[in-house]
Amino acid sequence: MTSRDGFQWTPSDGLKQGVPSIGVISPPRKIQTDKPWDVIVVGSGYSGLTAARDMCVAGLRVLLVEARDRIGGRSWSSNIEGYPFEMGGTWVHWHQPHVWREISRYQMRGELESSFDFSRGVNHFELRTDHGVTTMSHEEEDNLLATALEKFVNVDGNMCRTLIPFPHAGFHNPEARKYDRMSVLDRLNEISQTLTPNERASVESFILLCSCGTLETTSLFEFLHWWALGGYNYQGCMDCLISYKFKGGQSSFAIKFFNEAMSSGNLSYAFNSPVKSIHDEGEQVTLTTRDGRIYTASRLISTIPLNVLSDVEFNPPLDQNRAQATKIGHVNQCVKVHAEISNKDMRSWTGITYPFNKLTYAIGDGTTPAGNTHVVCFGGYFNHIQPEEDIDATKSAVTSMAPGKMDIQRLVFHNWSKDQFAKGAWFFSPPRLLSDSLDALRQRHGNILFANSDWAIGWRSFIDGAIEEGTRVAFTLKEELRPTGSSLRSQL
Amino acid sequence: MTSRDGFQWTPSDGLKQGVPSIGVISPPRKIQTDKPWDVIVVGSGYSGLTAARDMCVAGLRVLLVEARDRIGGRSWSSNIEGYPFEMGGTWVHWHQPHVWREISRYQMRGELESSFDFSRGVNHFELRTDHGVTTMSHEEEDNLLATALEKFVNVDGNMCRTLIPFPHAGFHNPEARKYDRMSVLDRLNEISQTLTPNERASVESFILLCSCGTLETTSLFEFLHWWALGGYNYQGCMDCLISYKFKGGQSSFAIKFFNEAMSSGNLSYAFNSPVKSIHDEGEQVTLTTRDGRIYTASRLISTIPLNVLSDVEFNPPLDQNRAQATKIGHVNQCVKVHAEISNKDMRSWTGITYPFNKLTYAIGDGTTPAGNTHVVCFGGYFNHIQPEEDIDATKSAVTSMAPGKMDIQRLVFHNWSKDQFAKGAWFFSPPRLLSDSLDALRQRHGNILFANSDWAIGWRSFIDGAIEEGTRVAFTLKEELRPTGSSLRSQL
Repeated sequence: MTSRDGFQWTPSDGLKQGVPSIGVISPPRKIQTDKPWDVIVVGSGYSGLTAARDMCVAGLRVLLVEARDRIGGRSWSSNIEGYPFEMGGTWVHWHQPHVWREISRYQMRGELESSFDFSRGVNHFELRTDHGVTTMSHEEEDNLLATALEKFVNVDGNMCRTLIPFPHAGFHNPEARKYDRMSVLDRLNEISQTLTPNERASVESFILLCSCGTLETTSLFEFLHWWALGGYNYQGCMDCLISYKFKGGQSSFAIKFFNEAMSSGNLSYAFNSPVKSIHDEGEQVTLTTRDGRIYTASRLISTIPLNVLSDVEFNPPLDQNRAQATKIGHVNQCVKVHAEISNKDMRSWTGITYPFNKLTYAIGDGTTPAGNTHVVCFGGYFNHIQPEEDIDATKSAVTSMAPGKMDIQRLVFHNWSKDQFAKGAWFFSPPRLLSDSLDALRQRHGNILFANSDWAIGWRSFIDGAIEEGTRVAFTLKEELRPTGSSLRSQL
Repeated sequence: MTSRDGFQWTPSDGLKQGVPSIGVISPPRKIQTDKPWDVIVVGSGYSGLTAARDMCVAGLRVLLVEARDRIGGRSWSSNIEGYPFEMGGTWVHWHQPHVWREISRYQMRGELESSFDFSRGVNHFELRTDHGVTTMSHEEEDNLLATALEKFVNVDGNMCRTLIPFPHAGFHNPEARKYDRMSVLDRLNEISQTLTPNERASVESFILLCSCGTLETTSLFEFLHWWALGGYNYQGCMDCLISYKFKGGQSSFAIKFFNEAMSSGNLSYAFNSPVKSIHDEGEQVTLTTRDGRIYTASRLISTIPLNVLSDVEFNPPLDQNRAQATKIGHVNQCVKVHAEISNKDMRSWTGITYPFNKLTYAIGDGTTPAGNTHVVCFGGYFNHIQPEEDIDATKSAVTSMAPGKMDIQRLVFHNWSKDQFAKGAWFFSPPRLLSDSLDALRQRHGNILFANSDWAIGWRSFIDGAIEEGTRVAFTLKEELRPTGSSLRSQL
């Protein structure tokens, strides 16, 4: 099946919208029971999938309403000629507890592979800055970035251990809030004397890879939080952030959640159903789609991302603090462009081009069925590009990553900035948003609960955080709505 | 409620068997439905609790059969004058995915605390060996042990990253099996020239703290596996192994699983019910208790630990490979003795006494309601002691950890070696057992499934591994036994 989402360019076919994915659901609408639902779940990303699955398994009747034609939300993979390009959301790790519990439970531990393979031809790292080009081994690359990042994060003289002793409770130490009022630029200014030009270029481009904002709009705390979650060290951080992915792509994982929910017999669903309004009437919640369908349930779980939450009409309206947070939004405007290139030797290559290029970070990420190299390239709001609006500029940004080495055979991408149901990629906080609004974003609103990785406690912004959030709201509603007294079966 | 398990000694009352715990279940038997059960779960440690809970929530009717008067198996805590002493199983960490998912789900993230508190009087580490006594700061302690362990584990020149690239699939690299045929002593002999006497004493005593066997009976691979799981570095390893515990004790965590299962209405249980035999009759499984009660179900999950599995009669008998593994058993004969001492300044103290003492490793682990210091001491099969059989020798071993500093007000312990339902503490493999039998131990046996941390894939030997295993078998049986066609509710 082909999703409407995503774009593909090849020399023969040019630019085409829509990319095949095993995450597309057909038929798009299936109502398994005409009785009233216990819970409506809006959104079929990992938060929604987890919540729907957990509640269905626990015997609650759930309706899943999704604007798109596919599951996964901001995490999904194409299947192009049998090969998965990750359109958003890629890497997972065993130190991410919620995602790993699911990988283990679905017996997918053997289905991971490393993005990196440093055993091929162009086995080096290229750092291209305004100061020139430096080529080094991957070990030297690690040393450069580790040294730079350690200087950057060491705000407490203890590599953040003192500041964030419990990374799954980020503000456990109230002192941490101070660092959420600082931007990455503020911190760079503090330590600018200690960084070499190459260290500064690599730390800036790496953090911009994480936030896809700008140095001014990236919360210092949020990056330190990632560092703490990764084990307070460089290698742990890299392992957790960008090392291990599914051989079969993200959608091969997401579909497990969906299928388990379906097999319970308790899941109904409606895809292609953007939501217009959500009305909590006290006794029940009524959802109205843009095409005029009306669904009701006792409770509703909204997994709508922060950057588009204000596009849905809530009645009663959202509280002021949450409404304010949705206006501010998060800063991640990631541009992730996959390039299939004929140069097989680039499998072992990594590179940074910063600050002059429209894409800043790239790695050899796999070998396609045709034997070509898959290179994944990242840019963000800094030097922002809309890849489908100027495909030549996009190709130019890819080839500028490694001039003369990139013979592009295919480009694949999803423009998250222009995606009306996301308006951005994974959450990354600007200064103050978390300290001002994280608690408010996690509150329920009468019969409406809100679950999204955007306001997770632990691996916020990650698939792990999405599952954490889906688990949280499902647990709450399971306890709240479960039949009292005795077992379901004994009532038969 | 007071469990029959465990011992307590005080100067006024002397030695008494039985320790109060919130994990004791009363009434000890409760049958919520007289219909035939879907699944019998034998054992209410974390494997059994997880399996029972997951299946109950999914609508299966479960009978939990437990030999003891309490939940938790080898992990439980006393509640003595409002203070939890951990009788077995203590530390958890957010890099242990299964345990952390549950801590997050039960909203207990705020209920952890650090065992260590290096802000008090005797803020140093004492290393007492045959060569004399060395006192050093905790930072120097870390440096000593880190240096020694790094030499010890670095069998691949890459800190085990090459040997164990996926620690949740230990034998992913077949080369790892070679290291399971080696003992810790074999490895120490290889590197003996590189270790100072203090390094050797600290690495030996630390690994014996992990295995509670002897150097000859401790599988090298199993220790390397722990190292890999901890993030391939010393600090990550220490964080995961012995740093963070529940303020309210393990039993405050275990009871959440039990209560959730109960609240489903699908759980019946029988405590004080040691199992005599388990008979798979094809259509159903019949369990007979030692006191002659007979229970039947479609499937049975045995969570009986490896070292006592052969005490239950299976029909048909266990396959030869599994039977052979149960005969060999694991090597962990931990002696964990809690001492409440009047010396408040010892809160920040840590120490090793090796090899001359009957207890080898101790840390200041908390402050009791009386304001005394709680010191937890460990010994193992090396210089083994049965603490309740010679309480004076036990007191002597405790005071020898830090002569002149230990004014013992109370001792608390559980003699796992003499516990007929455990015959040892957490699993630790002797050489060859894992490479020969891990796969066999994980196999089902007709309608009988086996779940225990002893043969988990990831954090084997840990609470995390127990939850991993319970999750695995519950998922299998939920898929196998779930009502076909439609939802439970729609059948009402």
